[in-house]
Amino acid sequence: MRVIGIDPGLRNLGWGVIDIDGVKISHVANGVVHGAGEALAARLLVLFDGLSEIVARFAPDTAAIEQTFVNRDGAGTLKLGQARGVALLVPARAGIPVGEYAPNQVKKTVVGVGHADKRQIDHMVRLQLPGVEIAGPDAADALAIALTHAHFSRAGSRLEAALRRATA
Amino acid sequence: MRVIGIDPGLRNLGWGVIDIDGVKISHVANGVVHGAGEALAARLLVLFDGLSEIVARFAPDTAAIEQTFVNRDGAGTLKLGQARGVALLVPARAGIPVGEYAPNQVKKTVVGVGHADKRQIDHMVRLQLPGVEIAGPDAADALAIALTHAHFSRAGSRLEAALRRATA
Repeated sequence: MRVIGIDPGLRNLGWGVIDIDGVKISHVANGVVHGAGEALAARLLVLFDGLSEIVARFAPDTAAIEQTFVNRDGAGTLKLGQARGVALLVPARAGIPVGEYAPNQVKKTVVGVGHADKRQIDHMVRLQLPGVEIAGPDAADALAIALTHAHFSRAGSRLEAALRRATA
Repeated sequence: MRVIGIDPGLRNLGWGVIDIDGVKISHVANGVVHGAGEALAARLLVLFDGLSEIVARFAPDTAAIEQTFVNRDGAGTLKLGQARGVALLVPARAGIPVGEYAPNQVKKTVVGVGHADKRQIDHMVRLQLPGVEIAGPDAADALAIALTHAHFSRAGSRLEAALRRATA
């Protein structure tokens, strides 16, 4: 199963693609789409085109995105919401299901504690994907989100397998 | 010049198309795209596809959208932001410029005062577009935004004409 993790932002939209094969996880690619341009609509179009190109190129089976903090200022929340709308739209257009994970769920899964900083996330992503070159903090976050999805889908598979055994 | 006004929302995205020919303004069409579905990504896709179809069908030259209040709760701002991202993206993809107007600018232009209620907006939109059938309050808001854009572009044209005369 191939997963794309997405960390949306109007300036920097991080993305990371990993493959999951049973217990084995491997890195495929990661990067950042930069929302260039002055006008908001133009910037959203750059994000949309960039992420659409990534999804077409790597053809993930599923997508994962972080649920968003809303305890920041209203203007910041609105900006992030606009970028997030585009980030959710792109996999939906490609017919790919999108999972959402709370930020502390991502941190707890990848680092082990709910209040990890960017440095710890970067470190643990590198440990879990040996040799990976990371395009920046937004790409590291995107990979962490993809790893979280891998963790929960494997847990789901194990649960399904156990249920199959129990009902066999 | 053909203008599409857009009033974005996750549940109801209002749209209204008008033609401007000198001082003459005429109604073309209006409606509401309903963001059906449980999953957020699926709902955004319905909005995207619906609005894309409208833009392709009516081929506006320019689009106008309301600037958003951010003094509501964070969760509401995020939801609106996501719908707004899609609403801005669609005309940008079609190569159509998008103007933004503050809500009180729209009310002041259409009703004459900055703090008009929905009933007054509906009334004044009907006065300015005689015989119009309006699909609902979100479509009325969208038409009000389109009328605001018409007003400011005509004011711009008059200014340009005056400057041309002055410098001739």
